[in-house]
Amino acid sequence: MFFDCEYRVCYGDTDQMGVVYYANYFEFFERGRTEMLRAAGFPYSRLEKLGIFLPVTEAKCRYLASARYDDLVTLRSTVLELGRVRFRIGSQVRLGERLLASGEVTLACVNADKRPTRISPELEQACRDYLLKPGEVWE
Amino acid sequence: MFFDCEYRVCYGDTDQMGVVYYANYFEFFERGRTEMLRAAGFPYSRLEKLGIFLPVTEAKCRYLASARYDDLVTLRSTVLELGRVRFRIGSQVRLGERLLASGEVTLACVNADKRPTRISPELEQACRDYLLKPGEVWE
Amino acid sequence: MFFDCEYRVCYGDTDQMGVVYYANYFEFFERGRTEMLRAAGFPYSRLEKLGIFLPVTEAKCRYLASARYDDLVTLRSTVLELGRVRFRIGSQVRLGERLLASGEVTLACVNADKRPTRISPELEQACRDYLLKPGEVWE
Amino acid sequence: MFFDCEYRVCYGDTDQMGVVYYANYFEFFERGRTEMLRAAGFPYSRLEKLGIFLPVTEAKCRYLASARYDDLVTLRSTVLELGRVRFRIGSQVRLGERLLASGEVTLACVNADKRPTRISPELEQACRDYLLKPGEVWE
Repeated sequence: MFFDCEYRVCYGDTDQMGVVYYANYFEFFERGRTEMLRAAGFPYSRLEKLGIFLPVTEAKCRYLASARYDDLVTLRSTVLELGRVRFRIGSQVRLGERLLASGEVTLACVNADKRPTRISPELEQACRDYLLKPGEVWE
Repeated sequence: MFFDCEYRVCYGDTDQMGVVYYANYFEFFERGRTEMLRAAGFPYSRLEKLGIFLPVTEAKCRYLASARYDDLVTLRSTVLELGRVRFRIGSQVRLGERLLASGEVTLACVNADKRPTRISPELEQACRDYLLKPGEVWE
Repeated sequence: MFFDCEYRVCYGDTDQMGVVYYANYFEFFERGRTEMLRAAGFPYSRLEKLGIFLPVTEAKCRYLASARYDDLVTLRSTVLELGRVRFRIGSQVRLGERLLASGEVTLACVNADKRPTRISPELEQACRDYLLKPGEVWE
Repeated sequence: MFFDCEYRVCYGDTDQMGVVYYANYFEFFERGRTEMLRAAGFPYSRLEKLGIFLPVTEAKCRYLASARYDDLVTLRSTVLELGRVRFRIGSQVRLGERLLASGEVTLACVNADKRPTRISPELEQACRDYLLKPGEVWE
């Protein structure tokens, strides 16, 4: 399973090479995974009420083709792996059927003291909704 | 009086027009005023210890010429006005003798509850060090 | 007349004060005016075909209340003034009925050589669609 | 061999978790590698004169500890691998002796038509100056 949402590239996202600056894809990834969790019934406000945070512990991206100003890109997200205190999100930026960038971001669940804490049952359930099934392909 | 510090424009600061994106000058202004206050003996750590914050209530900028990637620009700052709970900073981005952008940012002093609070004596003193003197010209 | 579109505040838009960083409102303004021009039949691709650019020559913002992470804010835009080679956009960030920030951005029309050039008839028409009428109030 | 330069974290780099936003480390990496190449006698202006660009094809980062507002961090860079048309940079963000984040960025050399092109001799020489030697450890 994966979740798609749209995002309009703004001028501030670009750099002088005329394309989206490489670091900004990670912000796009963040937008995508936030909307995926919202769609799974777990908006950010739930995190706040539970007093937990989801810092990133690892992130990577392969850049295949460039997103450009004013592109209405698709942000595709899935859950690649779901552990007890961390989970790994797959993130893609697409333009129509074309894959522009593909990456992964590992998030850890921590409490207000920044200590690792077990992923709450409702966050786990939300992740499970979009967990990549065995056999499903993720580029 | 004014304070100068240097900043190297990075790729991420630019946009596809090949110059620094207009919103980023306000980040440059922030860098400049922070260094001015540090030079006046008031680093950010003092703010934290005093439990105060300095949110921006108004900001503006005139753009005269473009800063470009890899430019080593000068961030020039001064205190244009010093009140009881707010102060107004003058900020410029220069390349050598050339003025690229000139703006103003008004900061309010608030406490942890985000209530306006009197500027502390030591912050006032720091601002006074760089207060524009009568007769001094600021473009 | 004004134009409204929505924008979801992301984590990367915030700063450690827990609210949207002041410079980022200018990126929001850009999103709003781009969508207004698109709604008026003048998407960015037209600019490219005409070989013109719209650099910002002046920008300002008053900050009244804070936009926060995950807020679905309304970006309201209007044309405050329409000249021969430049026009002035009014931009607001709202949360429901509440005005969070209000600003203005002046754009100049330049050709590929960065020389001021007369606003093309179709851009002028697009701006006219959203020109603030006499008597209309803009905070 | 590696190259160190310093960078002052600004307010705009942080997010509401009170630390540097994860995507911004990639901008820090860019600052570090640009200064390394400059130190090796290959400033950006050389790239421009040669008509080549260095788009990123892959990037990753492990986050070990947080950089915070006003930290004067060290940006450490090295060349991990040097090929015919691409090279791989190692990038770290440090606070004193402490490693905060460690990553890698692969850059491809392309010409004005965005076609892969052989790394020019002088860029190759610059990279060689900071190429990680066999036996040298890079975390």
